[in-house]
Amino acid sequence: MPEPPVMSRLEVLRDPAVMQTRALAWRRAGRRIGLVPTMGYLHPGHISLVRLAREQADVVVVSIFVNPTQFGPREDFATYPRDFARDLELLGAEGAITVFAPEAAAVYAPDASVQVCEERLASCLCGATRPGHFRGVLTVCAKLFHLALPDVAAFGRKDAQQLRLIEQMVRDLNFPLAILPGPIVREPDGLAMSSRNVRLPAAHRAQATCLHRALRTIEQAAARGERRTAALEALLRATIATAPDARLEYAELRDWHTLAPAPAQWHAPTLAALAVHFGDVRLIDNTLLTAS
Amino acid sequence: MPEPPVMSRLEVLRDPAVMQTRALAWRRAGRRIGLVPTMGYLHPGHISLVRLAREQADVVVVSIFVNPTQFGPREDFATYPRDFARDLELLGAEGAITVFAPEAAAVYAPDASVQVCEERLASCLCGATRPGHFRGVLTVCAKLFHLALPDVAAFGRKDAQQLRLIEQMVRDLNFPLAILPGPIVREPDGLAMSSRNVRLPAAHRAQATCLHRALRTIEQAAARGERRTAALEALLRATIATAPDARLEYAELRDWHTLAPAPAQWHAPTLAALAVHFGDVRLIDNTLLTAS
Repeated sequence: MPEPPVMSRLEVLRDPAVMQTRALAWRRAGRRIGLVPTMGYLHPGHISLVRLAREQADVVVVSIFVNPTQFGPREDFATYPRDFARDLELLGAEGAITVFAPEAAAVYAPDASVQVCEERLASCLCGATRPGHFRGVLTVCAKLFHLALPDVAAFGRKDAQQLRLIEQMVRDLNFPLAILPGPIVREPDGLAMSSRNVRLPAAHRAQATCLHRALRTIEQAAARGERRTAALEALLRATIATAPDARLEYAELRDWHTLAPAPAQWHAPTLAALAVHFGDVRLIDNTLLTAS
Repeated sequence: MPEPPVMSRLEVLRDPAVMQTRALAWRRAGRRIGLVPTMGYLHPGHISLVRLAREQADVVVVSIFVNPTQFGPREDFATYPRDFARDLELLGAEGAITVFAPEAAAVYAPDASVQVCEERLASCLCGATRPGHFRGVLTVCAKLFHLALPDVAAFGRKDAQQLRLIEQMVRDLNFPLAILPGPIVREPDGLAMSSRNVRLPAAHRAQATCLHRALRTIEQAAARGERRTAALEALLRATIATAPDARLEYAELRDWHTLAPAPAQWHAPTLAALAVHFGDVRLIDNTLLTAS
Protein backbone atom coordinates (compact mmCIF):
# COMPACT_ATOMS: atom_id res chain seq x y z
CA MET A 1 0.00 0.00 0.00
CA PRO A 2 1.41 3.40 -0.87
CA GLU A 3 2.33 5.91 1.82
CA PRO A 4 -0.57 8.27 2.47
CA PRO A 5 0.11 11.76 1.13
CA VAL A 6 2.17 13.74 3.60
CA MET A 7 -0.47 16.42 4.13
CA SER A 8 -2.95 13.87 5.51
CA ARG A 9 -0.82 13.52 8.63
CA LEU A 10 -1.60 17.12 9.55
CA GLU A 11 -4.74 17.84 11.51
CA VAL A 12 -5.85 21.45 11.80
CA LEU A 13 -7.96 22.50 14.81
CA ARG A 14 -9.50 25.95 15.01
CA ASP A 15 -11.72 25.68 18.07
CA PRO A 16 -10.04 26.04 21.50
CA ALA A 17 -12.69 23.82 23.11
CA VAL A 18 -12.02 21.04 20.58
CA MET A 19 -8.26 21.40 21.17
CA GLN A 20 -8.74 21.01 24.92
CA THR A 21 -11.10 18.04 24.61
CA ARG A 22 -8.56 16.34 22.32
CA ALA A 23 -5.72 17.08 24.75
CA LEU A 24 -7.68 15.73 27.74
CA ALA A 25 -8.35 12.52 25.79
CA TRP A 26 -4.63 12.18 24.93
CA ARG A 27 -3.74 12.67 28.59
CA ARG A 28 -6.25 10.00 29.67
CA ALA A 29 -4.79 7.65 27.06
CA GLY A 30 -1.35 8.16 28.62
CA ARG A 31 0.10 9.91 25.57
CA ARG A 32 2.80 12.50 26.17
CA ILE A 33 1.99 15.82 24.52
CA GLY A 34 4.61 18.17 23.09
CA LEU A 35 3.67 21.78 22.29
CA VAL A 36 5.48 24.25 20.02
CA PRO A 37 3.86 27.68 20.36
CA THR A 38 4.49 29.84 17.26
CA MET A 39 3.18 32.93 15.51
CA GLY A 40 3.49 31.15 12.16
CA TYR A 41 5.53 32.12 9.09
CA LEU A 42 7.63 29.14 10.06
CA HIS A 43 11.35 28.79 9.41
CA PRO A 44 13.98 26.14 10.24
CA GLY A 45 14.21 27.50 13.80
CA HIS A 46 10.59 26.51 14.39
CA ILE A 47 11.12 23.15 12.67
CA SER A 48 14.03 22.39 15.01
CA LEU A 49 11.64 23.00 17.92
CA VAL A 50 9.11 20.60 16.40
CA ARG A 51 11.80 17.93 16.22
CA LEU A 52 12.92 18.69 19.79
CA ALA A 53 9.34 18.31 21.06
CA ARG A 54 8.85 15.08 19.11
CA GLU A 55 11.88 13.50 20.80
CA GLN A 56 10.04 13.72 24.13
CA ALA A 57 6.39 13.38 23.15
CA ASP A 58 3.97 10.97 21.47
CA VAL A 59 1.79 13.74 20.08
CA VAL A 60 3.06 17.09 18.74
CA VAL A 61 0.89 20.21 18.71
CA VAL A 62 2.12 23.30 16.84
CA SER A 63 0.09 26.37 17.63
CA ILE A 64 0.00 29.11 15.00
CA PHE A 65 -1.43 32.30 16.43
CA VAL A 66 -0.30 35.88 15.88
CA ASN A 67 -1.21 37.01 19.38
CA PRO A 68 -2.52 40.57 19.28
CA THR A 69 -2.02 41.21 23.01
CA GLN A 70 1.77 40.97 22.83
CA PHE A 71 2.04 43.76 20.23
CA GLY A 72 2.09 47.41 21.27
CA PRO A 73 -0.14 49.94 19.49
CA ARG A 74 2.78 51.20 17.37
CA GLU A 75 4.24 47.76 16.68
CA ASP A 76 4.06 45.48 13.66
CA PHE A 77 0.97 43.34 14.35
CA ALA A 78 -0.60 44.32 11.02
CA THR A 79 2.56 43.73 8.98
CA TYR A 80 3.78 40.62 10.84
CA PRO A 81 4.28 38.09 8.03
CA ARG A 82 1.62 35.39 7.66
CA ASP A 83 1.37 32.44 5.23
CA PHE A 84 -0.72 29.62 6.62
CA ALA A 85 -0.59 27.44 3.48
CA ARG A 86 3.20 27.60 3.42
CA ASP A 87 3.32 26.81 7.17
CA LEU A 88 1.21 23.67 6.60
CA GLU A 89 3.47 22.62 3.74
CA LEU A 90 6.59 22.95 5.92
CA LEU A 91 4.96 21.05 8.79
CA GLY A 92 3.72 18.38 6.38
CA ALA A 93 7.27 17.09 6.05
CA GLU A 94 7.57 16.61 9.82
CA GLY A 95 5.22 13.67 10.36
CA ALA A 96 1.95 13.65 12.30
CA ILE A 97 1.21 17.05 13.77
CA THR A 98 -1.87 18.70 15.21
CA VAL A 99 -1.89 22.33 14.13
CA PHE A 100 -3.86 24.55 16.50
CA ALA A 101 -4.70 27.77 14.67
CA PRO A 102 -7.50 29.62 16.45
CA GLU A 103 -9.10 32.93 15.54
CA ALA A 104 -8.35 35.76 17.97
CA ALA A 105 -12.05 36.11 18.76
CA ALA A 106 -12.11 32.48 19.94
CA VAL A 107 -9.05 33.03 22.14
CA TYR A 108 -10.06 36.26 23.91
CA ALA A 109 -13.53 37.03 25.26
CA PRO A 110 -14.55 40.65 24.68
CA ASP A 111 -14.56 41.22 28.45
CA ALA A 112 -11.40 39.21 29.24
CA SER A 113 -9.67 40.73 32.25
CA VAL A 114 -7.40 38.09 33.82
CA GLN A 115 -3.72 38.12 32.85
CA VAL A 116 -0.44 36.62 33.93
CA CYS A 117 1.93 39.35 35.14
CA GLU A 118 5.60 39.61 35.94
CA GLU A 119 7.33 42.87 36.76
CA ARG A 120 10.90 41.96 37.66
CA LEU A 121 12.39 39.89 34.82
CA ALA A 122 10.03 41.62 32.35
CA SER A 123 11.08 45.21 33.08
CA CYS A 124 14.44 45.24 31.27
CA LEU A 125 15.80 44.45 27.78
CA CYS A 126 12.84 44.04 25.38
CA GLY A 127 10.39 44.75 28.22
CA ALA A 128 11.83 48.24 28.71
CA THR A 129 10.63 49.38 25.29
CA ARG A 130 7.70 47.01 24.86
CA PRO A 131 5.41 47.62 27.87
CA GLY A 132 2.79 44.90 28.17
CA HIS A 133 4.62 42.63 25.69
CA PHE A 134 5.58 39.94 28.19
CA ARG A 135 2.24 40.17 29.97
CA GLY A 136 0.71 39.31 26.60
CA VAL A 137 3.22 36.50 26.01
CA LEU A 138 2.77 34.92 29.45
CA THR A 139 -1.01 35.16 29.27
CA VAL A 140 -1.30 33.53 25.85
CA CYS A 141 1.20 30.81 26.81
CA ALA A 142 -0.78 30.05 29.99
CA LYS A 143 -3.88 29.74 27.81
CA LEU A 144 -2.10 27.50 25.28
CA PHE A 145 -0.74 25.33 28.10
CA HIS A 146 -4.31 24.85 29.38
CA LEU A 147 -5.70 24.14 25.91
CA ALA A 148 -3.02 21.74 24.64
CA LEU A 149 -2.03 20.36 28.09
CA PRO A 150 1.59 19.67 27.09
CA ASP A 151 4.01 17.50 29.05
CA VAL A 152 6.79 19.42 27.28
CA ALA A 153 6.79 22.77 25.48
CA ALA A 154 9.63 23.95 23.22
CA PHE A 155 10.81 27.56 23.08
CA GLY A 156 13.76 28.94 21.12
CA ARG A 157 16.77 30.53 22.80
CA LYS A 158 16.65 33.42 20.33
CA ASP A 159 13.89 34.94 22.43
CA ALA A 160 16.05 34.58 25.54
CA GLN A 161 14.10 36.86 27.86
CA GLN A 162 10.84 35.21 26.80
CA LEU A 163 12.35 31.78 27.54
CA ARG A 164 13.52 32.96 30.97
CA LEU A 165 10.05 34.36 31.74
CA ILE A 166 8.25 31.23 30.57
CA GLU A 167 10.51 29.10 32.77
CA GLN A 168 9.73 31.42 35.70
CA MET A 169 5.98 31.18 35.03
CA VAL A 170 6.08 27.39 34.87
CA ARG A 171 7.92 27.28 38.18
CA ASP A 172 5.99 30.04 40.00
CA LEU A 173 2.53 28.83 38.92
CA ASN A 174 3.46 25.11 39.15
CA PHE A 175 2.44 24.19 35.60
CA PRO A 176 2.80 20.39 35.26
CA LEU A 177 5.17 20.56 32.30
CA ALA A 178 8.82 20.91 31.32
CA ILE A 179 10.24 23.61 29.06
CA LEU A 180 12.61 22.47 26.28
CA PRO A 181 14.92 25.30 25.19
CA GLY A 182 15.95 25.03 21.53
CA PRO A 183 19.23 26.42 20.14
CA ILE A 184 19.31 29.50 17.91
CA VAL A 185 19.18 28.45 14.24
CA ARG A 186 21.09 30.75 11.87
CA GLU A 187 21.29 31.60 8.18
CA PRO A 188 24.60 30.62 6.48
CA ASP A 189 25.95 34.14 7.13
CA GLY A 190 25.06 34.00 10.83
CA LEU A 191 21.82 36.02 10.97
CA ALA A 192 19.50 34.43 13.53
CA MET A 193 16.41 33.03 11.81
CA SER A 194 13.30 35.10 12.44
CA SER A 195 9.95 35.48 10.71
CA ARG A 196 10.70 39.19 10.57
CA ASN A 197 13.90 38.76 8.44
CA VAL A 198 11.76 38.66 5.28
CA ARG A 199 10.83 42.28 5.91
CA LEU A 200 14.48 43.44 5.57
CA PRO A 201 15.33 45.11 2.24
CA ALA A 202 18.52 43.74 0.63
CA ALA A 203 20.83 46.52 1.86
CA HIS A 204 19.69 46.03 5.45
CA ARG A 205 19.74 42.26 5.13
CA ALA A 206 23.46 42.43 4.32
CA GLN A 207 24.20 44.70 7.30
CA ALA A 208 22.07 42.60 9.68
CA THR A 209 24.93 40.15 10.19
CA CYS A 210 26.38 42.73 12.60
CA LEU A 211 24.37 41.22 15.48
CA HIS A 212 25.91 37.81 14.98
CA ARG A 213 29.39 39.29 14.47
CA ALA A 214 29.10 41.35 17.65
CA LEU A 215 28.16 38.28 19.69
CA ARG A 216 30.98 36.17 18.17
CA THR A 217 33.42 38.98 18.95
CA ILE A 218 32.60 39.03 22.64
CA GLU A 219 32.48 35.23 22.87
CA GLN A 220 36.05 35.26 21.59
CA ALA A 221 37.06 38.05 23.98
CA ALA A 222 35.47 36.15 26.87
CA ALA A 223 37.32 33.00 25.82
CA ARG A 224 40.57 35.01 25.90
CA GLY A 225 39.77 35.91 29.51
CA GLU A 226 38.06 39.30 29.23
CA ARG A 227 36.09 39.53 32.50
CA ARG A 228 35.10 43.20 32.34
CA THR A 229 31.42 43.66 31.59
CA ALA A 230 31.92 47.22 30.32
CA ALA A 231 34.62 46.08 27.86
CA LEU A 232 32.35 43.43 26.37
CA GLU A 233 29.38 45.81 26.12
CA ALA A 234 31.65 48.36 24.38
CA LEU A 235 32.71 45.66 21.89
CA LEU A 236 29.05 44.89 21.18
CA ARG A 237 28.26 48.55 20.55
CA ALA A 238 31.35 49.06 18.37
CA THR A 239 30.48 46.10 16.14
CA ILE A 240 26.88 47.23 15.69
CA ALA A 241 28.19 50.71 14.84
CA THR A 242 29.99 49.25 11.79
CA ALA A 243 26.55 48.81 10.16
CA PRO A 244 25.64 52.27 8.81
CA ASP A 245 21.85 51.81 9.01
CA ALA A 246 21.74 50.02 12.37
CA ARG A 247 20.02 51.80 15.25
CA LEU A 248 20.98 50.19 18.54
CA GLU A 249 18.20 49.70 21.12
CA TYR A 250 20.27 47.81 23.70
CA ALA A 251 23.53 45.88 24.01
CA GLU A 252 23.74 44.49 27.52
CA LEU A 253 25.21 41.78 29.70
CA ARG A 254 22.78 40.48 32.33
CA ASP A 255 22.71 37.69 34.89
CA TRP A 256 20.87 34.80 33.23
CA HIS A 257 18.76 33.97 36.28
CA THR A 258 17.81 37.41 37.63
CA LEU A 259 18.30 39.42 34.40
CA ALA A 260 19.90 42.06 36.65
CA PRO A 261 22.80 44.00 35.05
CA ALA A 262 25.97 41.92 35.16
CA PRO A 263 28.45 43.10 37.81
CA ALA A 264 31.65 44.91 36.78
CA GLN A 265 33.28 41.49 36.43
CA TRP A 266 30.69 39.20 34.83
CA HIS A 267 30.32 35.61 35.96
CA ALA A 268 28.66 32.70 34.20
CA PRO A 269 25.96 32.24 33.18
CA THR A 270 25.59 35.73 31.74
CA LEU A 271 23.25 36.67 28.91
CA ALA A 272 24.67 39.01 26.28
CA ALA A 273 21.69 40.43 24.43
CA LEU A 274 21.17 42.78 21.50
CA ALA A 275 18.21 44.60 19.99
CA VAL A 276 18.89 46.51 16.77
CA HIS A 277 16.54 48.33 14.40
CA PHE A 278 16.95 48.53 10.61
CA GLY A 279 14.25 50.92 9.46
CA ASP A 280 11.01 49.59 10.94
CA VAL A 281 12.35 46.06 11.42
CA ARG A 282 13.51 45.18 14.91
CA LEU A 283 16.00 42.30 15.27
CA ILE A 284 17.17 40.58 18.45
CA ASP A 285 19.95 38.09 19.10
CA ASN A 286 21.91 36.84 22.09
CA THR A 287 24.44 34.44 23.48
CA LEU A 288 24.84 32.84 26.88
CA LEU A 289 28.36 33.41 28.18
CA THR A 290 29.67 30.53 30.23
CA ALA A 291 33.02 30.36 32.01
CA SER A 292 35.89 30.18 29.49
CA MET B 1 -13.57 -7.70 58.63
CA PRO B 2 -14.24 -4.50 60.63
CA GLU B 3 -14.37 -1.10 58.96
CA PRO B 4 -10.97 0.57 59.08
CA PRO B 5 -10.85 3.49 61.52
CA VAL B 6 -12.17 6.62 59.90
CA MET B 7 -8.89 8.54 60.18
CA SER B 8 -7.11 6.00 58.00
CA ARG B 9 -9.14 7.22 55.02
CA LEU B 10 -7.39 10.58 55.22
CA GLU B 11 -4.10 10.97 53.45
CA VAL B 12 -2.04 14.07 54.24
CA LEU B 13 0.39 15.36 51.62
CA ARG B 14 2.80 18.20 52.43
CA ASP B 15 5.01 18.30 49.35
CA PRO B 16 3.63 20.12 46.27
CA ALA B 17 5.65 17.87 43.95
CA VAL B 18 4.16 14.75 45.52
CA MET B 19 0.66 16.25 45.24
CA GLN B 20 1.19 16.95 41.53
CA THR B 21 2.64 13.50 40.81
CA ARG B 22 -0.34 11.93 42.55
CA ALA B 23 -2.79 14.11 40.61
CA LEU B 24 -1.13 13.27 37.27
CA ALA B 25 -1.44 9.56 38.09
CA TRP B 26 -5.14 9.96 38.96
CA ARG B 27 -5.71 11.77 35.68
CA ARG B 28 -3.96 9.01 33.72
CA ALA B 29 -6.12 6.45 35.55
CA GLY B 30 -9.22 8.33 34.37
CA ARG B 31 -10.26 9.37 37.87
CA ARG B 32 -12.15 12.64 38.22
CA ILE B 33 -10.54 14.95 40.77
CA GLY B 34 -12.50 17.37 42.97
CA LEU B 35 -10.65 20.15 44.80
CA VAL B 36 -11.85 22.19 47.79
CA PRO B 37 -9.34 24.99 48.46
CA THR B 38 -9.51 26.18 52.10
CA MET B 39 -7.48 28.09 54.66
CA GLY B 40 -8.42 25.51 57.31
CA TYR B 41 -10.25 26.00 60.62
CA LEU B 42 -13.04 24.16 58.87
CA HIS B 43 -16.73 24.63 59.54
CA PRO B 44 -19.94 23.18 58.04
CA GLY B 45 -19.64 25.59 55.09
CA HIS B 46 -16.40 23.89 54.07
CA ILE B 47 -17.88 20.44 54.68
CA SER B 48 -20.79 21.25 52.35
CA LEU B 49 -18.19 22.07 49.66
CA VAL B 50 -16.47 18.73 50.26
CA ARG B 51 -19.79 16.95 49.72
CA LEU B 52 -20.50 19.05 46.62
CA ALA B 53 -17.12 18.13 45.14
CA ARG B 54 -17.59 14.45 45.98
CA GLU B 55 -20.85 14.34 44.00
CA GLN B 56 -18.88 15.07 40.84
CA ALA B 57 -15.50 13.48 41.50
CA ASP B 58 -13.90 10.11 42.24
CA VAL B 59 -11.11 11.63 44.33
CA VAL B 60 -11.49 14.60 46.69
CA VAL B 61 -8.57 16.86 47.59
CA VAL B 62 -9.00 19.44 50.38
CA SER B 63 -6.18 21.95 50.48
CA ILE B 64 -5.48 23.61 53.82
CA PHE B 65 -3.18 26.57 53.38
CA VAL B 66 -3.33 29.98 55.06
CA ASN B 67 -2.01 31.83 52.05
CA PRO B 68 0.23 34.70 53.18
CA THR B 69 0.06 36.58 49.87
CA GLN B 70 -3.65 37.33 50.14
CA PHE B 71 -3.28 39.14 53.48
CA GLY B 72 -2.29 42.80 53.63
CA PRO B 73 0.47 43.94 56.00
CA ARG B 74 -2.09 45.22 58.54
CA GLU B 75 -4.46 42.26 58.18
CA ASP B 76 -5.04 39.20 60.36
CA PHE B 77 -2.61 36.64 58.88
CA ALA B 78 -0.97 36.08 62.30
CA THR B 79 -4.25 35.76 64.18
CA TYR B 80 -6.19 33.84 61.52
CA PRO B 81 -7.49 30.79 63.43
CA ARG B 82 -5.67 27.49 62.81
CA ASP B 83 -6.33 23.99 64.21
CA PHE B 84 -5.03 21.29 61.90
CA ALA B 85 -5.84 18.37 64.24
CA ARG B 86 -9.46 19.51 64.50
CA ASP B 87 -9.61 19.98 60.70
CA LEU B 88 -8.47 16.39 60.18
CA GLU B 89 -11.04 15.15 62.67
CA LEU B 90 -13.86 16.94 60.83
CA LEU B 91 -12.67 15.66 57.45
CA GLY B 92 -12.29 12.15 58.88
CA ALA B 93 -16.08 11.83 58.94
CA GLU B 94 -16.32 12.63 55.22
CA GLY B 95 -14.84 9.48 53.70
CA ALA B 96 -11.63 9.18 51.72
CA ILE B 97 -9.94 12.55 51.33
CA THR B 98 -6.47 13.67 50.33
CA VAL B 99 -5.53 16.65 52.48
CA PHE B 100 -2.93 18.87 50.82
CA ALA B 101 -1.33 21.03 53.52
CA PRO B 102 1.94 22.50 52.27
CA GLU B 103 4.33 24.83 54.10
CA ALA B 104 4.47 28.36 52.70
CA ALA B 105 8.16 27.91 51.88
CA ALA B 106 7.29 24.96 49.64
CA VAL B 107 4.59 26.96 47.85
CA TYR B 108 6.50 30.18 47.13
CA ALA B 109 10.11 30.36 45.93
CA PRO B 110 12.04 33.23 47.57
CA ASP B 111 12.35 34.91 44.15
CA ALA B 112 8.82 34.17 42.92
CA SER B 113 7.69 36.95 40.60
CA VAL B 114 4.86 35.63 38.38
CA GLN B 115 1.30 36.34 39.48
CA VAL B 116 -2.23 36.19 38.12
CA CYS B 117 -3.72 39.68 37.92
CA GLU B 118 -7.15 41.15 37.40
CA GLU B 119 -7.89 44.84 37.72
CA ARG B 120 -11.55 45.27 36.75
CA LEU B 121 -13.66 42.89 38.86
CA ALA B 122 -11.03 43.07 41.63
CA SER B 123 -11.03 46.84 42.11
CA CYS B 124 -14.34 47.22 43.98
CA LEU B 125 -16.01 45.79 47.11
CA CYS B 126 -13.37 43.87 49.13
CA GLY B 127 -10.70 44.74 46.56
CA ALA B 128 -11.13 48.47 47.23
CA THR B 129 -9.81 48.13 50.78
CA ARG B 130 -7.64 45.03 50.32
CA PRO B 131 -5.16 45.92 47.55
CA GLY B 132 -3.35 42.82 46.32
CA HIS B 133 -5.84 40.49 48.03
CA PHE B 134 -7.37 39.05 44.88
CA ARG B 135 -4.03 38.92 43.10
CA GLY B 136 -2.93 36.68 45.98
CA VAL B 137 -6.12 34.62 45.78
CA LEU B 138 -5.97 34.11 42.00
CA THR B 139 -2.28 33.26 42.08
CA VAL B 140 -2.59 30.65 44.83
CA CYS B 141 -5.67 29.14 43.16
CA ALA B 142 -3.83 28.89 39.83
CA LYS B 143 -1.03 27.10 41.67
CA LEU B 144 -3.45 24.75 43.47
CA PHE B 145 -5.21 24.01 40.17
CA HIS B 146 -1.85 23.00 38.65
CA LEU B 147 -0.86 20.93 41.68
CA ALA B 148 -4.14 19.05 42.26
CA LEU B 149 -5.32 19.12 38.61
CA PRO B 150 -9.02 19.15 39.50
CA ASP B 151 -11.85 18.43 37.07
CA VAL B 152 -14.09 20.38 39.46
CA ALA B 153 -13.27 22.88 42.20
CA ALA B 154 -15.78 24.01 44.84
CA PHE B 155 -15.95 27.59 46.15
CA GLY B 156 -18.50 29.04 48.56
CA ARG B 157 -20.88 31.81 47.58
CA LYS B 158 -20.12 33.65 50.84
CA ASP B 159 -16.95 34.95 49.16
CA ALA B 160 -18.99 36.15 46.19
CA GLN B 161 -16.41 38.44 44.61
CA GLN B 162 -13.77 35.72 44.96
CA LEU B 163 -16.11 33.23 43.27
CA ARG B 164 -16.76 35.68 40.43
CA LEU B 165 -13.01 36.27 39.97
CA ILE B 166 -12.18 32.56 40.04
CA GLU B 167 -14.83 31.91 37.39
CA GLN B 168 -13.33 34.72 35.29
CA MET B 169 -9.82 33.29 35.68
CA VAL B 170 -10.94 29.80 34.68
CA ARG B 171 -12.59 31.22 31.56
CA ASP B 172 -9.92 33.78 30.61
CA LEU B 173 -6.96 31.42 31.12
CA ASN B 174 -8.84 28.34 29.80
CA PHE B 175 -8.26 26.14 32.84
CA PRO B 176 -9.64 22.65 31.99
CA LEU B 177 -11.99 22.53 34.98
CA ALA B 178 -15.44 23.53 36.17
CA ILE B 179 -16.19 25.67 39.22
CA LEU B 180 -18.90 24.42 41.59
CA PRO B 181 -20.42 27.28 43.61
CA GLY B 182 -21.63 26.18 47.06
CA PRO B 183 -24.48 27.91 48.94
CA ILE B 184 -23.81 30.04 52.02
CA VAL B 185 -24.14 27.92 55.17
CA ARG B 186 -25.46 29.80 58.22
CA GLU B 187 -25.57 29.49 62.00
CA PRO B 188 -29.09 28.97 63.46
CA ASP B 189 -29.41 32.74 64.00
CA GLY B 190 -28.44 33.50 60.39
CA LEU B 191 -24.77 34.52 60.75
CA ALA B 192 -22.87 33.24 57.72
CA MET B 193 -20.34 30.60 58.79
CA SER B 194 -16.77 31.85 58.71
CA SER B 195 -13.53 30.76 60.31
CA ARG B 196 -13.25 34.31 61.63
CA ASN B 197 -16.53 34.11 63.65
CA VAL B 198 -14.63 32.47 66.52
CA ARG B 199 -12.73 35.72 67.01
CA LEU B 200 -15.94 37.66 67.84
CA PRO B 201 -16.46 38.39 71.56
CA ALA B 202 -19.96 37.50 72.81
CA ALA B 203 -21.37 41.04 72.60
CA HIS B 204 -20.28 41.40 68.99
CA ARG B 205 -21.34 37.87 68.12
CA ALA B 206 -24.92 38.77 69.11
CA GLN B 207 -24.88 41.96 67.00
CA ALA B 208 -23.32 40.19 64.00
CA THR B 209 -26.70 38.89 62.89
CA CYS B 210 -27.30 42.37 61.46
CA LEU B 211 -25.64 41.35 58.19
CA HIS B 212 -28.07 38.49 57.67
CA ARG B 213 -31.04 40.61 58.76
CA ALA B 214 -30.06 43.40 56.37
CA LEU B 215 -29.90 40.98 53.45
CA ARG B 216 -33.24 39.33 54.33
CA THR B 217 -34.80 42.79 54.57
CA ILE B 218 -33.84 43.75 51.05
CA GLU B 219 -34.74 40.32 49.65
CA GLN B 220 -38.23 40.92 51.02
CA ALA B 221 -38.34 44.47 49.66
CA ALA B 222 -37.19 43.20 46.26
CA ALA B 223 -39.86 40.50 46.36
CA ARG B 224 -42.44 43.21 47.07
CA GLY B 225 -41.26 44.93 43.88
CA GLU B 226 -38.72 47.51 45.12
CA ARG B 227 -36.61 48.17 42.01
CA ARG B 228 -34.70 51.23 43.24
CA THR B 229 -31.06 50.43 43.94
CA ALA B 230 -30.63 53.42 46.27
CA ALA B 231 -33.64 52.35 48.36
CA LEU B 232 -32.25 48.85 48.86
CA GLU B 233 -28.77 50.18 49.70
CA ALA B 234 -30.34 52.55 52.24
CA LEU B 235 -32.19 49.60 53.81
CA LEU B 236 -28.90 47.70 54.09
CA ARG B 237 -27.19 50.65 55.80
CA ALA B 238 -30.12 51.26 58.15
CA THR B 239 -30.19 47.65 59.31
CA ILE B 240 -26.43 47.58 59.93
CA ALA B 241 -26.79 50.84 61.88
CA THR B 242 -29.05 49.05 64.40
CA ALA B 243 -25.95 47.21 65.67
CA PRO B 244 -24.18 49.72 67.98
CA ASP B 245 -20.64 48.33 67.47
CA ALA B 246 -20.89 47.71 63.73
CA ARG B 247 -18.61 49.75 61.47
CA LEU B 248 -19.85 49.56 57.89
CA GLU B 249 -17.19 49.15 55.17
CA TYR B 250 -19.57 48.78 52.23
CA ALA B 251 -23.22 48.00 51.47
CA GLU B 252 -23.64 47.86 47.71
CA LEU B 253 -25.67 46.47 44.86
CA ARG B 254 -23.58 45.45 41.86
CA ASP B 255 -24.15 43.66 38.57
CA TRP B 256 -23.23 40.01 39.19
CA HIS B 257 -21.29 39.64 35.92
CA THR B 258 -19.39 42.94 35.65
CA LEU B 259 -19.46 43.91 39.37
CA ALA B 260 -20.20 47.45 38.13
CA PRO B 261 -22.53 49.50 40.36
CA ALA B 262 -26.14 48.50 39.76
CA PRO B 263 -28.09 51.06 37.72
CA ALA B 264 -30.71 53.24 39.41
CA GLN B 265 -33.23 50.46 38.74
CA TRP B 266 -31.42 47.17 39.46
CA HIS B 267 -31.98 44.14 37.26
CA ALA B 268 -31.26 40.51 37.94
CA PRO B 269 -28.82 39.05 38.63
CA THR B 270 -27.58 41.69 41.08
CA LEU B 271 -25.20 41.04 43.95
CA ALA B 272 -26.05 42.74 47.24
CA ALA B 273 -22.87 42.65 49.31
CA LEU B 274 -21.88 43.75 52.79
CA ALA B 275 -18.62 44.15 54.68
CA VAL B 276 -18.90 45.09 58.35
CA HIS B 277 -16.25 45.39 61.05
CA PHE B 278 -16.75 44.53 64.73
CA GLY B 279 -13.57 45.61 66.47
CA ASP B 280 -10.73 43.98 64.50
CA VAL B 281 -12.97 41.29 63.01
CA ARG B 282 -14.16 41.86 59.46
CA LEU B 283 -17.32 40.02 58.34
CA ILE B 284 -18.77 39.74 54.84
CA ASP B 285 -22.09 38.41 53.58
CA ASN B 286 -24.16 38.73 50.43
CA THR B 287 -27.18 37.63 48.49
CA LEU B 288 -27.85 37.34 44.79
CA LEU B 289 -31.04 39.21 43.86
CA THR B 290 -32.97 37.54 41.08
CA ALA B 291 -36.16 38.80 39.50
CA SER B 292 -39.05 38.66 41.97
